Amino acid sequence: MQQFEITSEFIANVKNFVDEGDNASISKLLGELHHADIAEILDELNFEQSIYIIRLLDSDITSEIIAELDEDVREKVLRSLSSKEIAEEIDELETDDAADIIAELPEAQKEEVIAQLEDVEKAKDIVDLLRYNEDTAGGLMRKELIAVRDSWTVLHCVKEMRKQAEAFEKVHTIYVVNDDGILKGRLSLKSLLTTSTKTPISEIFNPKITSVKVEEDDEEVAKIMQKYDLIVVPVIDEMGRLMGQITIDDVVDVIREEADKDYQLAAGITQDVEASDSIFELTKARLPWLFLGLIGGVGAFLIMEGFKDFFKNYAVLFFFTPLIAAMAGNVGVQSSAIIVQGLANNDVKGSINNRLIKEMLLATLNGIILALFLFAFVWGYEGDPSKAFAISVSLVAVIIVAGLVGTFIPLFLNKRGIDPAIATGPFITTSNDIFGILIYFWIAKMILGI
Amino acid sequence: MQQFEITSEFIANVKNFVDEGDNASISKLLGELHHADIAEILDELNFEQSIYIIRLLDSDITSEIIAELDEDVREKVLRSLSSKEIAEEIDELETDDAADIIAELPEAQKEEVIAQLEDVEKAKDIVDLLRYNEDTAGGLMRKELIAVRDSWTVLHCVKEMRKQAEAFEKVHTIYVVNDDGILKGRLSLKSLLTTSTKTPISEIFNPKITSVKVEEDDEEVAKIMQKYDLIVVPVIDEMGRLMGQITIDDVVDVIREEADKDYQLAAGITQDVEASDSIFELTKARLPWLFLGLIGGVGAFLIMEGFKDFFKNYAVLFFFTPLIAAMAGNVGVQSSAIIVQGLANNDVKGSINNRLIKEMLLATLNGIILALFLFAFVWGYEGDPSKAFAISVSLVAVIIVAGLVGTFIPLFLNKRGIDPAIATGPFITTSNDIFGILIYFWIAKMILGI
Repeated sequence: MQQFEITSEFIANVKNFVDEGDNASISKLLGELHHADIAEILDELNFEQSIYIIRLLDSDITSEIIAELDEDVREKVLRSLSSKEIAEEIDELETDDAADIIAELPEAQKEEVIAQLEDVEKAKDIVDLLRYNEDTAGGLMRKELIAVRDSWTVLHCVKEMRKQAEAFEKVHTIYVVNDDGILKGRLSLKSLLTTSTKTPISEIFNPKITSVKVEEDDEEVAKIMQKYDLIVVPVIDEMGRLMGQITIDDVVDVIREEADKDYQLAAGITQDVEASDSIFELTKARLPWLFLGLIGGVGAFLIMEGFKDFFKNYAVLFFFTPLIAAMAGNVGVQSSAIIVQGLANNDVKGSINNRLIKEMLLATLNGIILALFLFAFVWGYEGDPSKAFAISVSLVAVIIVAGLVGTFIPLFLNKRGIDPAIATGPFITTSNDIFGILIYFWIAKMILGI
Repeated sequence: MQQFEITSEFIANVKNFVDEGDNASISKLLGELHHADIAEILDELNFEQSIYIIRLLDSDITSEIIAELDEDVREKVLRSLSSKEIAEEIDELETDDAADIIAELPEAQKEEVIAQLEDVEKAKDIVDLLRYNEDTAGGLMRKELIAVRDSWTVLHCVKEMRKQAEAFEKVHTIYVVNDDGILKGRLSLKSLLTTSTKTPISEIFNPKITSVKVEEDDEEVAKIMQKYDLIVVPVIDEMGRLMGQITIDDVVDVIREEADKDYQLAAGITQDVEASDSIFELTKARLPWLFLGLIGGVGAFLIMEGFKDFFKNYAVLFFFTPLIAAMAGNVGVQSSAIIVQGLANNDVKGSINNRLIKEMLLATLNGIILALFLFAFVWGYEGDPSKAFAISVSLVAVIIVAGLVGTFIPLFLNKRGIDPAIATGPFITTSNDIFGILIYFWIAKMILGI
């Protein structure tokens, strides 16, 4: 099977069949598709059409579809299903997806749904999982895994594994625990297939295994899995007991969300919003940063007001304030972004001082190159080398200060345990606008001897 | 084993032992560590110390360490090793890492190293892999995989798999091919363990398998693996023959690099640079965008020059140009970032027109809220409601235009097949600065009837 391309023609067909109630054709069209594809198709339909299809298809596939839907669509879908129907869907899911969905339900309904789950063992696991904060290893893990005891023989082990054959298609690691459930290591398929059946597991298992604690932060789990190239990692509790496992596909979502969040912060968007969110939600995410920009602009106004006596003879100075502000902002964003990204990727080494010295050299180099062009332009346009000199020298100073501020603030926030990503974007451009314009007028004043 | 924490004390110990030539202590310290940890330690040492350790440790571990090093450190390390030594390291690596490293060598050395590889089969595979562009599925895949023929029986299959037992620790999927090597499906461990040994594979394999073409773009591979939650995906050629497989850990790097690139573009940094790169490289990545900002600033200057007659009576208008420029820039970056991210996550649906209407409503709402505050401030400070009104109305207009430009440009670039990420950051702030200031003066002029 190649991946499937959803065309608008295909969507139109599905819609038609739903409107006509042609169940046979719907089943034929969707029957062979991957649940991720069906979820994408449902995102394109209206709500009644989606519900119609969910009620029509088997719960082994609809459960996967529901787990895959956008959170806001899922909320609506779940609201239109009874607790019994939801429990049937959840019975088909793995524990991590099941717990995520139950966590989204209203408090009152949670208990109702859990009470109606058929598989009592799974219900216990789900209730366990609900205890963990969603941003921790416990919140990411699922309970399904294959564990064998170090006291067993290979033969016993294979028999146990055959019993649990249902779970097999997704086995990535066979964990070895002792009789108290404490994680001891892992068993490779190789040893299992190539050792005599009487060998005790304790003699052939591999004790080298990287695990994470159940309370570990999800971003830390992501870093560990990336660093050690792990497909799956076991989760243990404070006693070292094996509690569950996390597979890399769940961590990929964490990595993407983290990158998305940093990107949004850099663009001046707080809160996790998407292009499809409501205008009200988007305003809530965007307005605070714009307000910050407004305050910065008022600050710039007050500074320029303070220098208004220059106006008569040096109006040209005022015409360059947007340029100064833009350069201060751009340099600040560049230097802070490099630091923020370096911190995220563990790539920022050495002392803050070294980093600041490097940024100063860099800003000086860039500033002088840019100032030469500006000098030539102003001299040529205004015919006044002293004004051109004052403006250009100020530009270099502004760029250096902007670079230092952009480097220092994220490093400082990081030392203080604050997410440095908030320091990129509007925060840095606004403060650099004000600093930049102030420095610009001071230096120009000194040079021109006003 | 819990993950290992690299302390500065530990690094100091390693350095001491290297300087003293105390090989026994080095081996003891590093012997039990994961190669990813050793690679991190080497990044902290100087070059001679790193080479000393690489020469000291076994090539089965040093090969993994070399594959893990930062590209610039690896380049230096490889330059100090002979072709024979490099070949020994490469003999220990999987084909994808091996091909990546060989691709980095100077042309002349490539052939030398390949000629000295002991494993001729692997050498062939590596030469094959070198043909593919590194940004495609072929460039990501490795040749190591387990494939069985649909004409075999279960017994034959298990025997073949035992033979290849070496590769077992990393088996994720058992692929089924026909006698021409064409991918037919996959075999679950479950069917292998629970079916009679005489059953032909053709009766028990699962024909549902998602594959990618060898020429597929790496970012597309990442999207497919994320969408279908795949741990591993087979790669096929134009005839459908199984060529290799890609595991998710390689794709995680693609996802991270892609997110990093978008983030850097939004911050005005072209080219992939890191905080630790040289000042010259950083200048190359940053200066072009600053130059764009300079040109934008000169544009703003020319516009203000054109309105300089207002100076005498309306100086206050000029004092607000940094505010106007900042707001235009911030709104532009916010709206473009949401679109860029939405496009990356396949979350932007519906027509461009709908999107523009939504952004216009959003910008109008935000603009009016901000303008009310500005109006109150200017009126209170300047005591002139007509100026306050002119400035505030202009602000609303500027914000609306900035939002529309920020929404339209990335959508337009995307339609044209250009990466929309270049439209965030300096590109949008610069054009919005100019547009914003122009609109601001026009509207103020109209309202004040100058």
